[in-house]
Amino acid sequence: MFLVKVQIKLKSTVNDPEGQTILEAMHRLNHKEISSVRTGKYFEIIIDSNDDIEVSEKVKKVCDDILTNPIVETYTYEIIRN
Amino acid sequence: MFLVKVQIKLKSTVNDPEGQTILEAMHRLNHKEISSVRTGKYFEIIIDSNDDIEVSEKVKKVCDDILTNPIVETYTYEIIRN
Repeated sequence: MFLVKVQIKLKSTVNDPEGQTILEAMHRLNHKEISSVRTGKYFEIIIDSNDDIEVSEKVKKVCDDILTNPIVETYTYEIIRN
Repeated sequence: MFLVKVQIKLKSTVNDPEGQTILEAMHRLNHKEISSVRTGKYFEIIIDSNDDIEVSEKVKKVCDDILTNPIVETYTYEIIRN
């Protein structure tokens, strides 16, 4: 069994009004040292398999095909064998 | 300067209809080995500081006060010194 942690974030060229709003809230609450907030999505996926290579290919495929919009987002992931 | 990566996820006792819908889509697309999908949020925060301890305390505070709903969510983070 594998646990996969996927982080999806907006490309740096894409505007992030949600992150900007959170940053302004932080400044209002006196966290002035914070200079940037970028928002994204996070997924934890469990895959029942014993084949490391198959899991790696599957994760890449579901990230590309289902979880991410490649026009505006990028992803990173880590695979943990349980 | 510090880069902070924050992963927020729903507590395991909280229903996640978005994750369930994504899981069903994966099954329809023949990714049958995937047995669970849980959704969450991801943030990348930049903090201008040279003080490791101050940064760690600040991250905990903004996670508790601004980013997370402690009733239904938990968070993890990593702090990277740049």
